[in-house]
Amino acid sequence: MYCFTVNPLINAPSRFLLGVCLCLFLIAARAAQDPLPAWSDGSSKRAIIDFVQRVTTAGGPDFVPVAERIAVFDNDGTLWSEQPAYFQLLFAIDRVRALAPQHPEWKTQQPFQAVLDNDIDALADAGEQGLLQLLMASHAGMTTTEFETIVSEWLATATHPKFKRPYTDLVFQPMLELLEYLRANGFKTYIVSGGGIEFMRPWVNGVYGIPPEQVIGSSIKVQYVLRDGVPVLERLPEIDFIDDKEGKPVRIHQFIGRRPLAAFGNSDGDLQMLQWTAAGEGARFMLLVQHTDAAREYAYDRKSHIGKLDKALDEAGEKGWTVVDMKNDWKTVYPFMP
Amino acid sequence: MYCFTVNPLINAPSRFLLGVCLCLFLIAARAAQDPLPAWSDGSSKRAIIDFVQRVTTAGGPDFVPVAERIAVFDNDGTLWSEQPAYFQLLFAIDRVRALAPQHPEWKTQQPFQAVLDNDIDALADAGEQGLLQLLMASHAGMTTTEFETIVSEWLATATHPKFKRPYTDLVFQPMLELLEYLRANGFKTYIVSGGGIEFMRPWVNGVYGIPPEQVIGSSIKVQYVLRDGVPVLERLPEIDFIDDKEGKPVRIHQFIGRRPLAAFGNSDGDLQMLQWTAAGEGARFMLLVQHTDAAREYAYDRKSHIGKLDKALDEAGEKGWTVVDMKNDWKTVYPFMP
Repeated sequence: MYCFTVNPLINAPSRFLLGVCLCLFLIAARAAQDPLPAWSDGSSKRAIIDFVQRVTTAGGPDFVPVAERIAVFDNDGTLWSEQPAYFQLLFAIDRVRALAPQHPEWKTQQPFQAVLDNDIDALADAGEQGLLQLLMASHAGMTTTEFETIVSEWLATATHPKFKRPYTDLVFQPMLELLEYLRANGFKTYIVSGGGIEFMRPWVNGVYGIPPEQVIGSSIKVQYVLRDGVPVLERLPEIDFIDDKEGKPVRIHQFIGRRPLAAFGNSDGDLQMLQWTAAGEGARFMLLVQHTDAAREYAYDRKSHIGKLDKALDEAGEKGWTVVDMKNDWKTVYPFMP
Repeated sequence: MYCFTVNPLINAPSRFLLGVCLCLFLIAARAAQDPLPAWSDGSSKRAIIDFVQRVTTAGGPDFVPVAERIAVFDNDGTLWSEQPAYFQLLFAIDRVRALAPQHPEWKTQQPFQAVLDNDIDALADAGEQGLLQLLMASHAGMTTTEFETIVSEWLATATHPKFKRPYTDLVFQPMLELLEYLRANGFKTYIVSGGGIEFMRPWVNGVYGIPPEQVIGSSIKVQYVLRDGVPVLERLPEIDFIDDKEGKPVRIHQFIGRRPLAAFGNSDGDLQMLQWTAAGEGARFMLLVQHTDAAREYAYDRKSHIGKLDKALDEAGEKGWTVVDMKNDWKTVYPFMP
């Protein structure tokens, strides 16, 4: 009330803050409608809403202050698709093809030859070591600024082999709503992904509303140097940290320094992140997306090479974590679908 | 206006948001007074206020959106004192003394013997390697939760040798005002310190208003393990990252993913962070605190072992960065001083 009786005295910063206020109010008004329209009514949706109401009810037994409302999301397979391969690997492959003219030696050198010949079997034979070589050849040897441009340009032009659309179209509409719903309730939403931090940062703010400082992921080493007096960060062909499995709670602790209140994943790579979240005191929420929808997206879980969901599915069953059945729990999958 | 005409319809989340609004307004109203009362009128104070006004003036040539208003602060010597030694080293020494009964071998083993005998010369002789041994003996071998308790208990009981007060009293009042002033103008304030992340996180939120997720520093490796089914993070006796000199821009990029708009330091260890900040486009602000006040704090710069300010001072002169003369620019140093 006070805000408005002093109206004539309001200075520029106050006007700005009043704008923020109006904006917050509009968000609140919107949240009063169904906040998750792409979710079918069912146990998953009810569990989400029940959890959010419990931790945001002032004076309630499960109330959590805004500052501690941290939600962490895996990216590949949780916020966007990850088939037929992690999109970052498809980026690496495209990148190797683009760089091939400068590397005639790749024609007879694995795993590069496999990429150039489109030889899936040889690529599989190259194993983890081969994958690492592809990643380093495509992700290192430039400045951080240059890499950001390369990623942005790729996303602007590359299309998914099955859906023939930009990769950033292949994000899950129900998860976009969930991110927004949590933020409207005071949560800070983070990505905690096995994918590269710098592969995600150029686009996740625009697509998910998650700012760069809330993106955690795997990384390669980076070196500060002066080039003609101008400081740059050079990307080195050396792994710094793999943000997967046991690495996820380690990085959450290092980057955020708070235990999440809620964690969202889709594979065994997310199990430790969910365990770490679940082990906190008070109300916590753990959710796994199970890919059950071969028609609209993909169907895979226990035996998949990519996004294998096996141990985590068992543990979710034992501990009562929420498991989303994509086919039945989601009215739509991608924003472009009806 | 809209906020208030619908008053009777306002639901719980909206009431919460209105509270946020009122709070933001009060912050704005307060900022209309002198936001930096502990700063003498002079070129340093003018430079700060001028910069903040330029980047927050909507429609002005230097305007920067709120999301990009990132300010990074060194801690030791910039936000609190660092003499007669980094406070974290004094913590390590106290810790070694507390643990000595469990380590009879330390009586005849350097650098531990030097600590137990209070032998400063022998401690100096132990060099960097000795320092590392002290740090590992005092900072590793427990869970992250246990370490947090140890730090908090030390801060609650230990006192500074000169001022005979808790270390957390030895923070700089003018810098507390500066942090608050920047935040009132939409800046996100970060610590980027050579000190340990986990040594700072237990107390900096209460003392500086900087939440754990905005604390960047040096770190040791941490490992996720299940103890009787309960997940813990164990602190290992192995350096993960030294967040000093060239390391500072590297970590800023990794943790924040945005180039700071403003950087505040006091030593050559902060030079690269200031260079990195300065090299961004548009208005940027770089500031060094020079310790010129032997009476109220300490006086040291070019030849000091701790917090050496030499190359960075030269570069500040060449590039026109703001250099705070503590003795003349600050009306008071610590909050407990008149």
